Amino acid sequence: MRKPAGVQTAPLVESVRSGDPRAIARAISALEDHEPGAEGIVQELFPFTGNALLVGLTGAPGTGKSSLANRLAGHYRVQGKRVGVIAVDPTSPFTGGALLGDRIRMQQHATDDGIYIRSMATRGVLGGLARATGDAALVLDAAGKDVILIETVGVGQDEVDIVRVADVTVLLLVAGLGDDVQSFKAGVMEIADIFVINKADRGDTDRLENELKVVLGLSRRTDGWLPPVVKTVATEGLGVPELAQGVEEYWVHVQRAGLRDEKRVQRWQERLVELIRERALERVLKSGVGKEQLAGYARQIARRERDPYSVVEELLRAAGVAE
Amino acid sequence: MRKPAGVQTAPLVESVRSGDPRAIARAISALEDHEPGAEGIVQELFPFTGNALLVGLTGAPGTGKSSLANRLAGHYRVQGKRVGVIAVDPTSPFTGGALLGDRIRMQQHATDDGIYIRSMATRGVLGGLARATGDAALVLDAAGKDVILIETVGVGQDEVDIVRVADVTVLLLVAGLGDDVQSFKAGVMEIADIFVINKADRGDTDRLENELKVVLGLSRRTDGWLPPVVKTVATEGLGVPELAQGVEEYWVHVQRAGLRDEKRVQRWQERLVELIRERALERVLKSGVGKEQLAGYARQIARRERDPYSVVEELLRAAGVAE
Repeated sequence: MRKPAGVQTAPLVESVRSGDPRAIARAISALEDHEPGAEGIVQELFPFTGNALLVGLTGAPGTGKSSLANRLAGHYRVQGKRVGVIAVDPTSPFTGGALLGDRIRMQQHATDDGIYIRSMATRGVLGGLARATGDAALVLDAAGKDVILIETVGVGQDEVDIVRVADVTVLLLVAGLGDDVQSFKAGVMEIADIFVINKADRGDTDRLENELKVVLGLSRRTDGWLPPVVKTVATEGLGVPELAQGVEEYWVHVQRAGLRDEKRVQRWQERLVELIRERALERVLKSGVGKEQLAGYARQIARRERDPYSVVEELLRAAGVAE
Repeated sequence: MRKPAGVQTAPLVESVRSGDPRAIARAISALEDHEPGAEGIVQELFPFTGNALLVGLTGAPGTGKSSLANRLAGHYRVQGKRVGVIAVDPTSPFTGGALLGDRIRMQQHATDDGIYIRSMATRGVLGGLARATGDAALVLDAAGKDVILIETVGVGQDEVDIVRVADVTVLLLVAGLGDDVQSFKAGVMEIADIFVINKADRGDTDRLENELKVVLGLSRRTDGWLPPVVKTVATEGLGVPELAQGVEEYWVHVQRAGLRDEKRVQRWQERLVELIRERALERVLKSGVGKEQLAGYARQIARRERDPYSVVEELLRAAGVAE
């Protein structure tokens, strides 16, 4: 593309395309850490992406997303598909590393070349987790993965952003909290293409299923899809083939309805906005103020010597971003 | 402050300061909807803020935050304190309105002038919910509220951002999901100053409490505070005085340790970054491209005719935000 390849970009891009796990890891780290020239990797790999199916898995803590992602990955492996797993933990803004559980999972699959598992966590105040997740998915896509599972903890806006990278979104619920459906109704329900009631061997699964079906029956999706409810016991692998089938059926529906491109354009529009936000902030911080000066302004504001909006106005002007 | 008051800013600011609920509602809406000149409201009110205690309540869906916020608000009212409640629902990106439950709550308190309840939800792709919540808290602060409760659904990065506005953060858990503590350990645990186990009359509360205390005993906070674990049954009001006492004790600890200003400076620094991010995006979208052109670029990217990073680079350059 238009950016000249850095010294190391070209060989790295070649190795990623051949599926080399170390090259994949290196490329994702460079993008996650925002190393100079890292964008060149995406630019070079980009023409070779768009082939993988991106499946997002989300749900509250404790719903068993990791177990289910593991089982689903195994299911696809048996079918001969190459699988990438991106485990995102936006609740981890301070640790910045992989969770113990994910490290254990990586060891389990360490001998299987057809699967690649990667953990990501928020790093620092600049955010950009959704962007980094999207970039990681592009790397795995260019590396020839057929299916990429994106697994994320929680049900807030950040998870919605992360899951929006996916082609198919699976929402996990567990019976027992009682008012799940009530709580979810407002927005997260609307992003889910498939519902999973996990841990279906315990709790009042039938009641939750009925509640869900009532709510789903009331909602109207513009794409004409009625999200199925799949019951699983992820720890035992029960219901996993049915989930994979649901994913397949949804994607067939999307393609038959001619909505595949429209959905992907919509997602790219959202990602562009996120990218602009992130890059513009970087530039302002770079040209306007260092982090130390930012602390000085924050001190003035905390003392009520200045108000936040006039400070921001001043910083934007200094960076050349005038109104 | 430096920005001249708009035609309506000055009287609105006066009415807000006198505690007029309709003026408060008007000011928060103007800030939430980002009306022209709305920043002037914050600028004018800002010198009169910094007096309220901001208490954040967060936890997964179904943990009973609304009930607890209601009870805690009632507790403070009995003590003669003026209370504001901001109910944030970041899981509601599409509905953009108040939830039914919050509307009902507002009616319950409609006859009490000492309490003001406000719901907020994400609106559109531009985000800014944490910023809008922070602005709403400033309005309520300037309106003379002694305590402002900020209640938010979920446990993701966005909720962490929202809760960071608060002086004191309360994390709600409910026994029953089994592996809550394990799931939360990575990051959300670290933002909580006080833990509440709600619905303590059911589930294996004792086990959860013990697990929590083990985890808390292992962690080291730099401020020397050991977060207490308070058991509540919010629907019955049980444990609410103990929670209020925990909040009080934490805030006394912060002030005695001389950390109040440091914590507020830190929070303002984070809010400045968020403000810059939001404003810079606005300016780029305003000067560089309209929303329709953005869709055109997204289409080119989805077709792999262009890569996302070169598009963003072009847009930033067009807006004068050069590298």
